Amino acid sequence: MDITIRPKGQLDLLSQHEISLLEGSNNNSVSALFRQCALAVLSCGSAHDDGHALLEQHKNFEINVSRSSRGVTLELTNAPAEAFVEGKLIRGIEEHLLAVLRDIVYIQHQVPIWERNGQSASDVVFNILRNARALKPRKKPNLVVCWGGHAITNNEYNYTKEVGYFLGLRKIDICTGCGTGAMKGPMKGATIAHGKQRQNQGRYIGITEPGIIASEAPNAIVNELIILPDIEKRLEAFVRLGHGIIVFPGGVGTCEEILYILGILMHPANKDVIVPLILTGPKEAANYFTALDTFIKSTLGDEASCLYTIIIDDPVTVARTMSAGLLQVQQSRQKQEDAYHYNWLLNVEPDFQIPFEPNHANMRALNLSKDQPKEKLAADLRRAFSGIVAGNVKADYVYLIKEKGLYQLQGDADIMEKLDALLNDFIEQKRMKISGEYSPCYELVD
Amino acid sequence: MDITIRPKGQLDLLSQHEISLLEGSNNNSVSALFRQCALAVLSCGSAHDDGHALLEQHKNFEINVSRSSRGVTLELTNAPAEAFVEGKLIRGIEEHLLAVLRDIVYIQHQVPIWERNGQSASDVVFNILRNARALKPRKKPNLVVCWGGHAITNNEYNYTKEVGYFLGLRKIDICTGCGTGAMKGPMKGATIAHGKQRQNQGRYIGITEPGIIASEAPNAIVNELIILPDIEKRLEAFVRLGHGIIVFPGGVGTCEEILYILGILMHPANKDVIVPLILTGPKEAANYFTALDTFIKSTLGDEASCLYTIIIDDPVTVARTMSAGLLQVQQSRQKQEDAYHYNWLLNVEPDFQIPFEPNHANMRALNLSKDQPKEKLAADLRRAFSGIVAGNVKADYVYLIKEKGLYQLQGDADIMEKLDALLNDFIEQKRMKISGEYSPCYELVD
Amino acid sequence: MDITIRPKGQLDLLSQHEISLLEGSNNNSVSALFRQCALAVLSCGSAHDDGHALLEQHKNFEINVSRSSRGVTLELTNAPAEAFVEGKLIRGIEEHLLAVLRDIVYIQHQVPIWERNGQSASDVVFNILRNARALKPRKKPNLVVCWGGHAITNNEYNYTKEVGYFLGLRKIDICTGCGTGAMKGPMKGATIAHGKQRQNQGRYIGITEPGIIASEAPNAIVNELIILPDIEKRLEAFVRLGHGIIVFPGGVGTCEEILYILGILMHPANKDVIVPLILTGPKEAANYFTALDTFIKSTLGDEASCLYTIIIDDPVTVARTMSAGLLQVQQSRQKQEDAYHYNWLLNVEPDFQIPFEPNHANMRALNLSKDQPKEKLAADLRRAFSGIVAGNVKADYVYLIKEKGLYQLQGDADIMEKLDALLNDFIEQKRMKISGEYSPCYELVD
Amino acid sequence: MDITIRPKGQLDLLSQHEISLLEGSNNNSVSALFRQCALAVLSCGSAHDDGHALLEQHKNFEINVSRSSRGVTLELTNAPAEAFVEGKLIRGIEEHLLAVLRDIVYIQHQVPIWERNGQSASDVVFNILRNARALKPRKKPNLVVCWGGHAITNNEYNYTKEVGYFLGLRKIDICTGCGTGAMKGPMKGATIAHGKQRQNQGRYIGITEPGIIASEAPNAIVNELIILPDIEKRLEAFVRLGHGIIVFPGGVGTCEEILYILGILMHPANKDVIVPLILTGPKEAANYFTALDTFIKSTLGDEASCLYTIIIDDPVTVARTMSAGLLQVQQSRQKQEDAYHYNWLLNVEPDFQIPFEPNHANMRALNLSKDQPKEKLAADLRRAFSGIVAGNVKADYVYLIKEKGLYQLQGDADIMEKLDALLNDFIEQKRMKISGEYSPCYELVD
Repeated sequence: MDITIRPKGQLDLLSQHEISLLEGSNNNSVSALFRQCALAVLSCGSAHDDGHALLEQHKNFEINVSRSSRGVTLELTNAPAEAFVEGKLIRGIEEHLLAVLRDIVYIQHQVPIWERNGQSASDVVFNILRNARALKPRKKPNLVVCWGGHAITNNEYNYTKEVGYFLGLRKIDICTGCGTGAMKGPMKGATIAHGKQRQNQGRYIGITEPGIIASEAPNAIVNELIILPDIEKRLEAFVRLGHGIIVFPGGVGTCEEILYILGILMHPANKDVIVPLILTGPKEAANYFTALDTFIKSTLGDEASCLYTIIIDDPVTVARTMSAGLLQVQQSRQKQEDAYHYNWLLNVEPDFQIPFEPNHANMRALNLSKDQPKEKLAADLRRAFSGIVAGNVKADYVYLIKEKGLYQLQGDADIMEKLDALLNDFIEQKRMKISGEYSPCYELVD
Repeated sequence: MDITIRPKGQLDLLSQHEISLLEGSNNNSVSALFRQCALAVLSCGSAHDDGHALLEQHKNFEINVSRSSRGVTLELTNAPAEAFVEGKLIRGIEEHLLAVLRDIVYIQHQVPIWERNGQSASDVVFNILRNARALKPRKKPNLVVCWGGHAITNNEYNYTKEVGYFLGLRKIDICTGCGTGAMKGPMKGATIAHGKQRQNQGRYIGITEPGIIASEAPNAIVNELIILPDIEKRLEAFVRLGHGIIVFPGGVGTCEEILYILGILMHPANKDVIVPLILTGPKEAANYFTALDTFIKSTLGDEASCLYTIIIDDPVTVARTMSAGLLQVQQSRQKQEDAYHYNWLLNVEPDFQIPFEPNHANMRALNLSKDQPKEKLAADLRRAFSGIVAGNVKADYVYLIKEKGLYQLQGDADIMEKLDALLNDFIEQKRMKISGEYSPCYELVD
Repeated sequence: MDITIRPKGQLDLLSQHEISLLEGSNNNSVSALFRQCALAVLSCGSAHDDGHALLEQHKNFEINVSRSSRGVTLELTNAPAEAFVEGKLIRGIEEHLLAVLRDIVYIQHQVPIWERNGQSASDVVFNILRNARALKPRKKPNLVVCWGGHAITNNEYNYTKEVGYFLGLRKIDICTGCGTGAMKGPMKGATIAHGKQRQNQGRYIGITEPGIIASEAPNAIVNELIILPDIEKRLEAFVRLGHGIIVFPGGVGTCEEILYILGILMHPANKDVIVPLILTGPKEAANYFTALDTFIKSTLGDEASCLYTIIIDDPVTVARTMSAGLLQVQQSRQKQEDAYHYNWLLNVEPDFQIPFEPNHANMRALNLSKDQPKEKLAADLRRAFSGIVAGNVKADYVYLIKEKGLYQLQGDADIMEKLDALLNDFIEQKRMKISGEYSPCYELVD
Repeated sequence: MDITIRPKGQLDLLSQHEISLLEGSNNNSVSALFRQCALAVLSCGSAHDDGHALLEQHKNFEINVSRSSRGVTLELTNAPAEAFVEGKLIRGIEEHLLAVLRDIVYIQHQVPIWERNGQSASDVVFNILRNARALKPRKKPNLVVCWGGHAITNNEYNYTKEVGYFLGLRKIDICTGCGTGAMKGPMKGATIAHGKQRQNQGRYIGITEPGIIASEAPNAIVNELIILPDIEKRLEAFVRLGHGIIVFPGGVGTCEEILYILGILMHPANKDVIVPLILTGPKEAANYFTALDTFIKSTLGDEASCLYTIIIDDPVTVARTMSAGLLQVQQSRQKQEDAYHYNWLLNVEPDFQIPFEPNHANMRALNLSKDQPKEKLAADLRRAFSGIVAGNVKADYVYLIKEKGLYQLQGDADIMEKLDALLNDFIEQKRMKISGEYSPCYELVD
């Protein structure tokens, strides 16, 4: 299918300068990334976590930004047919596509300018969210971030739907990493509940990053898609935009997210910041959370584990607890005069902001020992899991590992043992990949 | 749960005269009906087709209309807990409840006045739909009526969802009898597709009547509930409000509906009126439609069977065909200068308008012979099926049959044979009732 | 100019029955009235109080209601050119025209039905206002009725504009009799103030009646025009819809209005009803209000005069006083649980509801003596002034007087003397007519 | 009056970086300008063209930007009472105040960044208009720029109102320099006409610059106030944002504007750009336009004078001609694929973009001879008039002239003679200043 699209909304009004920049993107390094992300968005129908296969399948797909005096147009050639109905692009997919143009192409020109002018990483994340019109001033706190795996059991998936349903009945909006599995279920459940409550402005926000979008293409329910430039900004967007967090069963990616939020909340500067944090799943996932809880307690201690509540097999209680937590968030923000739309008061250390490049040297250099402040350990554990995610699914790193061998991780014997147990659990529970046999991308060394 | 509700919207602005009438309803004959329908609406979570059981279960439920100078309030006592979230009535259910107040209590005072002032049955149906704000002037024809059974297989249910999905992708709105099964599936599918197309004004219209609402309580997705005073007005509302009709597998109720529309379309006065009519189901339902088709051909002839298209196991083709049909409807209405919002040009004979009381005498008196114009036969066949539906699920008639024995139907041997075969098929395929053993409420006599 | 108009809004959705009734109006008694009112509305540019002259000037103007399947259309032939811009009817005038169709033609069929079904006069007024969508539930009391003459001095006119301006700055909406002079000024002032306050939903309601519309054609600013069937219903609409009243200098019409509201408020049943009532004008009008005040005190006593406040030459104080009064109205309605949108608690006696036919016998029969309850005297004084208005400007009565001689009014010498003085004042101050010499239509007899 | 204001809209969502910048403005050079412009906006009730007097009158007025975690607040101390109603700032004035914060304080930090990143002057103007949400994509061309003096006769003022009225009836929006006189009249007339046409989204755009706002405080009707950083960007904003131009009688400022647009349109690159340009006034202004026309013909030639149409005393013809012109603009933009919202295709030479500093040396250096391309002469004539405006009303330059003596202008004898005649006409016609005696700020030398 070939088609031409005129951006509406955000990219509707461009200066000649901006048009030149966008047009220029056809031939520069952004181009390949743009094409890949666009393709992922256009293929949202099919569950997959292999961006390369997708590219192979649509070799002759092309996307071009072209100028007209009134602005720019997107020209698509050989786009996947499933994105169309009677020759017209499905509206939601069109919006996703324009979000890719906005965040991959347009924003990439802005970030360096912002940075040059002295804006902090938190300012940059703020600017990106504002540009995506995701910040709603004065709206009461009702945005819950749902984390969890894309490769989960059917039963777990239904559980995430149920939790979403009971959140939705309480008029709570959903924000996820925007893939399938635990990232789709809560949105689906909330959609139906919002319908029942006649909330036709329900928000289903998907926050992703370029390296991950191909393997977790935004599901169709996402009505606000935002692509942050890197993992660390994506995580910061989650915790500053969302008002509470629910963690469903998942794999290493989910662990990365938990360690990220715990590492931040454990910092003394954040002792007065309220972030309701619930870990939940169906009965069959009880063991999973026990293992995770044990791992956290033994590495980061009770001061970490007291930051979350584990609720097993009880969607209504999850929803009620979160609803009460959101009220506390609202009261606390009022008292501290912080905005509802962006958690400015949360302190995020550079350890959690500076992009981590998971090459072999950096992975090996991680300090996984207890001989440091707990939030520092949390930061390096987060990096370790982040690296494993990359080695599992991100094309470049999968290739790197093929070439240079497995990542080597080292640290205190005690920590390494716990880590080994946890990762083996994930492998056994098939939480590493949607399909196919899993072979680890790392080894634990002394 | 106890609660007090102030009507918004339609019943927001009442004159003192109207308030008196509504208040008066607490003690008159309308009261029991109002209470029963309200209860059904409040119990929409649970699938059931037994209104009596529901009443038994909630013996101490009460609902009262009370006056305040500003209007009326509804006072509910001991309402089913499932209708509430954190002490507040779910908004969609509240709307359904107010629709019951509007159509059962308020409208009942209006109908006799309209009739006394010379308004026809079609005017009355129009007035009720207008009062419910269901008529949208100048909106292009996009409302598809979906008929089919509430007791269908899981596979058939999923098929109705799929058809709904592909209709929804084409921005088509759905109107059904508002129960479960084939009345819920298309709405659910369309909801998700409308979300994808960012149609947040999707219409999911449920058209019902007092005798049926208890056994087919409106599903939660219905965002416009309209209760017509009797079966005949309900059927007329379907065919004048909707722009096309899709029939899924069903039981006797579905047959009643098919015979109704065929009987009307066969009338010479309607030869230029376009009503796209598609019969469809999954592979397993192919036999069902063959049987139905055979029955129609052998009783009403080819001039009836050429009015519909049968499509088996192909949701996309159903959606495309209907979409093309709607365009034809639009062109034809333009050409004939008929309104989009109400099919005034369709001729409906009194045979199809006068309420049929399915008592034993009337059922016995039906003329099921070929010795009459085909549309007359269609009218009496429609009445026969209508009576069987009543005998199956409507409390009063179930009781009547217990007392007076089975209905007796008579007619041409040929017709009776075909009818017998069809009805036995329904019984075997368990299309007569959601649960429990089915024992027929009729017998065929010579 | 010839043109065809399709009603939007209220008359967009008509049943076939209603279409027939409207169509039927072309040839019945309503027709002449409809034509006359339509013509007045179309000529709103020119100040005049002579409906006959207007009809003379546009002898070949015609208006017809015609049926199309989708509803009705209005066909205008030889309409006044000033109502058009580049061949299209000015939108505000089109709305006025459709209001005439709605209230003169459509409503006339409804009123007898309502009355036959036991609705009171107050219900009927309510129904008409509701049908015109003039009742806004839950909107806080902010509608001020402005009464006063159409034939006022330039200085007085500017004063009404200033008062309107300061009301508008307080976000107060305006309701008047919708002619020129004191009926236009406050709207004009409020328009500019609403603009400054970015109130682009400001309401400028004009309430009129068929007999008066021709002589007080709605000014262009009126964005809600409502035509009540007779004077008494028009007056009731003013006092039930509005939340406070300001009276500017005027003539006999204004006196009628003052006596109407005083007669009602003096009734014991209304002692707890709050209606802020301010009489105001520029310095030059001080004598006018002194005369009026004297007349009221001497005829109805201090219990009448304590119901209003006179404020001379101080628009800001008028606006502040009214603003405070509206707050009291709000509190009182809340306390008494009365609606904001319609003052149901106000008691209006039949004396003030039954249409008064100002023929010679009825005028002569008025009891203008103190030998009766004060509110009865107020009622008959109101009728006297009403008759004089008719004799001054309403075509039929002007003709009647030409034929049968002057009205004869009789009563207590004291009252008659006061009345004589007041009426002579009006004549001297040229408050009886916009232009031309005034010759009285009445005489005072013993 | 003291008050605290929280920005809504544009400045609602600020990053910490931006908040710091705004907060920083309290103590830097922007501060005085901000205070002065804010004061002008708050005093919009009173006609004046003397910013200094205003500052004198409100010596203790203060305005501060202060930070709260949720954003910034404006704190006003001793603000002029006329800006308030019952203790609350009039909404329109609040909007103007926030526009000043946005354009004077916020934008001043953006402009250098834009320029550093290679954006052209036209891009910068575009960015400022976009940031003010003044660009409406896809809206059909209907914005007419009205130029003319603030010191005009009552009769001329009424004429501008009438023209505005007939433009408004044609649903045309108005853009002016946002002061009084010819900048207010057309908006006032259009407001009433828009009301008649039920256009409650009418746009009344005021485009000004810091040096001029104090002497031409935005009138209350302006509902979009935009302050460009300098005169040249203000003029470019007019001609790129507006779709047609009407010039009423005025003084030197108006001459500057006419020479600006003529100089641009005369450039060969603009020969295909359509800008309807009408010069109009009442009968008494006929001589004025004759003089102007003569001056233009004799200096810039017929190729300049053929770019405009002069219409005397005929508001309807002005409106009709402009309406037809706008249609041509629309067709031409469609054909050339240019945007409706910003005239990108118009070529503006640096001569018309680089801010002109009217100091004595620069004024003396102007080349007012025919010995150069006509558009160059137009550019320098424009600068000459611009300097005279500054010397007449801008505080700094009035002071400069007091100190250093009159500006000296030189050029071809022929041109100087025509210029002298024109300027003397303005002085005689009292077009130089709203009140007080005028003494020239320039002299013509050889």
